[in-house]
Amino acid sequence: MNIAVIGGGSWATAIVKILTENNDYVGWWMRDEENVMHIKKYHNNLKYLSSVELATERIDISNDLNHIVSNADCLIFAIPSAFLKSALSGLEVDIKDKHVFSAIKGIVPDENLIVGEYFNQNLGVPLDQIGVITGPCHAEEVALERLSYLTVASTNADMAKKVAKNLTCDYILTKTSDDIYGTEYAAVLKNIYALAAGIFHGLGYGDNFQAVLVSNGIREMKKFIKSVHPIKRDINGSAYLGDLLVTAYSQFSRNRTFGNMIGKGYTIRSAMLEMNMVAEGYYAARLIREVRKENEVKMPIADAVYKILYENRNPKKVMAKLALKLS
Amino acid sequence: MNIAVIGGGSWATAIVKILTENNDYVGWWMRDEENVMHIKKYHNNLKYLSSVELATERIDISNDLNHIVSNADCLIFAIPSAFLKSALSGLEVDIKDKHVFSAIKGIVPDENLIVGEYFNQNLGVPLDQIGVITGPCHAEEVALERLSYLTVASTNADMAKKVAKNLTCDYILTKTSDDIYGTEYAAVLKNIYALAAGIFHGLGYGDNFQAVLVSNGIREMKKFIKSVHPIKRDINGSAYLGDLLVTAYSQFSRNRTFGNMIGKGYTIRSAMLEMNMVAEGYYAARLIREVRKENEVKMPIADAVYKILYENRNPKKVMAKLALKLS
Repeated sequence: MNIAVIGGGSWATAIVKILTENNDYVGWWMRDEENVMHIKKYHNNLKYLSSVELATERIDISNDLNHIVSNADCLIFAIPSAFLKSALSGLEVDIKDKHVFSAIKGIVPDENLIVGEYFNQNLGVPLDQIGVITGPCHAEEVALERLSYLTVASTNADMAKKVAKNLTCDYILTKTSDDIYGTEYAAVLKNIYALAAGIFHGLGYGDNFQAVLVSNGIREMKKFIKSVHPIKRDINGSAYLGDLLVTAYSQFSRNRTFGNMIGKGYTIRSAMLEMNMVAEGYYAARLIREVRKENEVKMPIADAVYKILYENRNPKKVMAKLALKLS
Repeated sequence: MNIAVIGGGSWATAIVKILTENNDYVGWWMRDEENVMHIKKYHNNLKYLSSVELATERIDISNDLNHIVSNADCLIFAIPSAFLKSALSGLEVDIKDKHVFSAIKGIVPDENLIVGEYFNQNLGVPLDQIGVITGPCHAEEVALERLSYLTVASTNADMAKKVAKNLTCDYILTKTSDDIYGTEYAAVLKNIYALAAGIFHGLGYGDNFQAVLVSNGIREMKKFIKSVHPIKRDINGSAYLGDLLVTAYSQFSRNRTFGNMIGKGYTIRSAMLEMNMVAEGYYAARLIREVRKENEVKMPIADAVYKILYENRNPKKVMAKLALKLS
């Protein structure tokens, strides 16, 4: 099985690194031609995880999407959900018979679909060829080869096992799951809760309160996921609670950092400029709000974050009110 | 209702501070006579949370246990479980008609009983006068008046509410529960998992793995508590998951710090000497092992910590083996 990674960021780079531990051929597409040249010449990604020495002799790296997709049986998408559609706009190859795994952890803007649903509905990929790869896994720790667990979800158990095997190495352990909706939504929601954790931290709330927030966050996540996809799952598994914890508590978390700046008084625009990127939780807050129009789950934390990010409401007041609603 | 706090440490000091926000009379016993004199004169605890200015005009502080107990209807015990029996050895007053709340978060050594059971079986306090006060709540953040939640558990709902009301103030929110076994055992177990988190951190494991460990920890906790007291509870509530999180992730956590030193290569004895105290998780690991003789729940994390602390096993090897068992 030929696997290709789509995306040039830190998570894509980390997945390519992991795949080269087990595979003689790893396809890798990124848009930036200059970076493609740099990686071929210097064996590291100029922009992300630049300390990682990449085994380029096993990597077919190109900015030609159709070339990379044609040579692969299994595609792993690892680009911000906001850029998925523009990345796919150049795709001319039919991908109906390919396996598509989302490492995006996002909802496709305007569509309000998780990544797998989007591939299914818009590119005709059958649902049993769709999967999700999720953490808890900061790319920065893959770079350092610190032991991490990945969950590979697919309704096709054989395929989940196959991809999991391809990702397992000295520093990566894997488990498989059949919950492609729950794992993807969990990965989206955790960014909202990490953002909330950052805002509270920036406002001066301490560790005691943070623990209450995260404990409420996982319960809110459980209710939401159950409402959109009611199958049996243990919300305290690594792919759900674990992923929330690493995002809400880690120093590497961009969403937490973004929230922290807002709590400290930065405007949303200035926090984005300062970070030189947009944290996924920013999009997630709006998209979850859209998706929720169709269900009636109460989500006070997600609501509070939405109000601060999109309704220009005062973070201190909104969060003080939220704090009283938690339990 | 007159409430008295038994204990002179940081958690006792924090509870006294909270109680003085609402009560004109707060009884306070501690063994150390010199510290009693110091607090009366300087309005702060010489040894713990010394930055906190105590409203001593509302505190009846004494090292005479029988005096303090006699004047109180409700006793809150906040001393390390290892010292409970010796503290009680001087008790001559009958406490059968008093309400007794444990803020000890421990198992009584040699007895293998949680604190409430001990008071019930050995001092004749009826079970419906027994309660538990639990976090997530580091005393250090109470000193800073950072918003925190406490859970007050009692099978007597009125009494739980009454005590909760006495503890509620600007920086403390409370909830009540009827789960006196689950909250106490959760508070014991979380120290073991925080210790494990510290050991892994000391060994160089990163945030990704930490999240997996804690996610496994809460599942292990759920199974154990269910086996000893099978009532309906949401293990992701603040008193269970929240308390685990603050202990496993906070810089204020003594158990995590102790584990970290062991992971970094300190012997157990030298880590204790360096910290100038014994982390509760040290006792908890042994006591949970004793209690478990009577049930068959698998607890790989608690087992690993026990092996390191009591069987002189190599932390690196034990934890590498444990890491493979998690999921």
